[in-house]
Amino acid sequence: MVREIRNVAVLGATGSIGRQTLDVIRRLGDRFRVFALAAGNNQVELTQQIAEFQPALIHLQDATSSLCRDHRCLSPEEMAAHPEVDIVVVATPGNSGLMPTLAAARAGKIIALANKESLVSAGDIIMAEAARSGGQIRPLDSEHSAIWQCLSGESTPPARIILTASGGPFRETPSEKLKEISVAAALAHPSWQMGDKVTIDSATLLNKGLEVIEAHRLFGVPLDRIEVLIHPQSIVHSLVEFADGTVKAQLSCPDMRLPIQYALTYPEREPNPELPRLDWATLCKLDFGPPDTERFPCLKLAIEAGKQGATYPAVLCAADEIAVALFLEGRLKFTDIATVIAGTLVEHSPPTRYPTLEDILIADSWARQTARHLATGEKPC
Amino acid sequence: MVREIRNVAVLGATGSIGRQTLDVIRRLGDRFRVFALAAGNNQVELTQQIAEFQPALIHLQDATSSLCRDHRCLSPEEMAAHPEVDIVVVATPGNSGLMPTLAAARAGKIIALANKESLVSAGDIIMAEAARSGGQIRPLDSEHSAIWQCLSGESTPPARIILTASGGPFRETPSEKLKEISVAAALAHPSWQMGDKVTIDSATLLNKGLEVIEAHRLFGVPLDRIEVLIHPQSIVHSLVEFADGTVKAQLSCPDMRLPIQYALTYPEREPNPELPRLDWATLCKLDFGPPDTERFPCLKLAIEAGKQGATYPAVLCAADEIAVALFLEGRLKFTDIATVIAGTLVEHSPPTRYPTLEDILIADSWARQTARHLATGEKPC
Repeated sequence: MVREIRNVAVLGATGSIGRQTLDVIRRLGDRFRVFALAAGNNQVELTQQIAEFQPALIHLQDATSSLCRDHRCLSPEEMAAHPEVDIVVVATPGNSGLMPTLAAARAGKIIALANKESLVSAGDIIMAEAARSGGQIRPLDSEHSAIWQCLSGESTPPARIILTASGGPFRETPSEKLKEISVAAALAHPSWQMGDKVTIDSATLLNKGLEVIEAHRLFGVPLDRIEVLIHPQSIVHSLVEFADGTVKAQLSCPDMRLPIQYALTYPEREPNPELPRLDWATLCKLDFGPPDTERFPCLKLAIEAGKQGATYPAVLCAADEIAVALFLEGRLKFTDIATVIAGTLVEHSPPTRYPTLEDILIADSWARQTARHLATGEKPC
Repeated sequence: MVREIRNVAVLGATGSIGRQTLDVIRRLGDRFRVFALAAGNNQVELTQQIAEFQPALIHLQDATSSLCRDHRCLSPEEMAAHPEVDIVVVATPGNSGLMPTLAAARAGKIIALANKESLVSAGDIIMAEAARSGGQIRPLDSEHSAIWQCLSGESTPPARIILTASGGPFRETPSEKLKEISVAAALAHPSWQMGDKVTIDSATLLNKGLEVIEAHRLFGVPLDRIEVLIHPQSIVHSLVEFADGTVKAQLSCPDMRLPIQYALTYPEREPNPELPRLDWATLCKLDFGPPDTERFPCLKLAIEAGKQGATYPAVLCAADEIAVALFLEGRLKFTDIATVIAGTLVEHSPPTRYPTLEDILIADSWARQTARHLATGEKPC
């Protein structure tokens, strides 16, 4: 069988997911060609990646860089819609994923999506564009990849989705100690190696709230049928319950290269000796328990924003992005991340029902200014 | 959508699986018609079932019964091949399942198969007949149903199958106490309500060995890629590992009505409020560990017989059936079940490679006499 070579655009190539995507493509041999690479500011790593993969297109935020003189440079949106690109890997953090994802959806691409904020903020618009153009969204989040894998071959819609959560590094930290948490402690996730933004979101459980909304958008399951279960070992990546009471689960070692590879090779599965195997001789127990929304109010805030709908999810994402950035700069306490998000959501009035893309961008911008003001006292410009 | 009504023949209607099959059909409404009912000796219950379901065909072992005068009586093989039957549920224990399963396979029926001995003894013949006629074998064993469900939608063959086992009632019983085990204790399975034969087989772990061979026959996975994992809670019914290292699992409360219903409604899943749901608020941990083949030699004996192939699996099944019957009669110690099976396998020489059905029936008959002789000293007739 002669297989078609698929051209891949990797947006966020020098980040954690981007680098792991390139690692997977390196192992898969010549089925995939790295056609386009987009990075933020990491010129050194992008230069190495260009030398190895020889992409036709690149993007670097600093357009004055010498790289942009020597290579064909396009914007991430242009890359995502480029006629020769088959698969767009969106691995940029926060709101930077929105416009390229939308461009790829409009162009009918296969989108391997790691950026959950775009689906949370503008999921209805993205899903509608992908449906209209024949595009396909393949989740890279381990939880959503697990759900997608569990739904494979099922003709009856799921009755309930159960998203697992490691609980983060502060799963057992008492309430009174949460406000003193350092940046270094919050960045030390027990199971996953990830980018800074998503690692902090995992520590606050805001990330799990975003994932609940993401699952709702991707799989069309009502929010009140999506539950969260703490599972410290991060082996069961999520579960799906069906009408007859059967539950399917996807399990693996916590390694993002697995969902990345599956999104690329779907519906086939390729051997990859680099990917770790579960060892049942040492893995002797799997624990599960309910999340504590008292100590981790971000989870509840996110699910509530999802249920309210309108522009609330966009405001949630934007306020969180500002709060996390300020925490990482040492300008906000860990527990104040929730306070800033909650305050921004409360001030968001009136929300816009059935928002257009413009409404979402306006709400995003407003929420950034408001969150910054609430956190630092800085006046909006 | 107008759904075709499916005619079901239930062989072993008054046994545990048979009764649960009728319970499921009762709840599913008019999609299924109980077309034929076959029982052994339980005339009272069969009479009640006939009154409720009004089958067109019946079978009772005692052909002189008044039931056989008042209804159209056929043999189980005739029922299994009857032109108006769509689905044959084979829920008879031991070797009584072989001929009807083969008849159903030859007639191209959908076979919902609870009888594992037929697949273990004559799996190659049954699978070949079903493939030739366009018949389909749908497993009713919770483990094989789980594997079947996990394989749904996958285009790449499984890399490894992991069959879970509760470990039975004597999972933690020390070696020296095993030989004193009473019939009542062996019949008290911690997770499952089943017939006597399979309950004793579960206590010796012989059942899990039969299931390893059954999985090999059903899914074409080599025996050295099928593993057994003790999982006392009986929630994860089995796991499948794929080439990329992903593992899928099927979970549910231990209730045979779920795999029975799935085999009937496949590929759809139907709501059934009678079926229990997993409650994640109370289910807080799942344990796994290796089986102890020192204390439970039957597991190893069975897998070895499977690996040797030829007529060994048929001899294994027949010797076990005799040994279990003698144990239930109080004529054999619990630990001597393994001794009798091992002795019969050793005496089986020469085995017949690529056995025909006749070879299998001869080996079966020889093994029964030999096992009885080894156990009781009774001379073969």
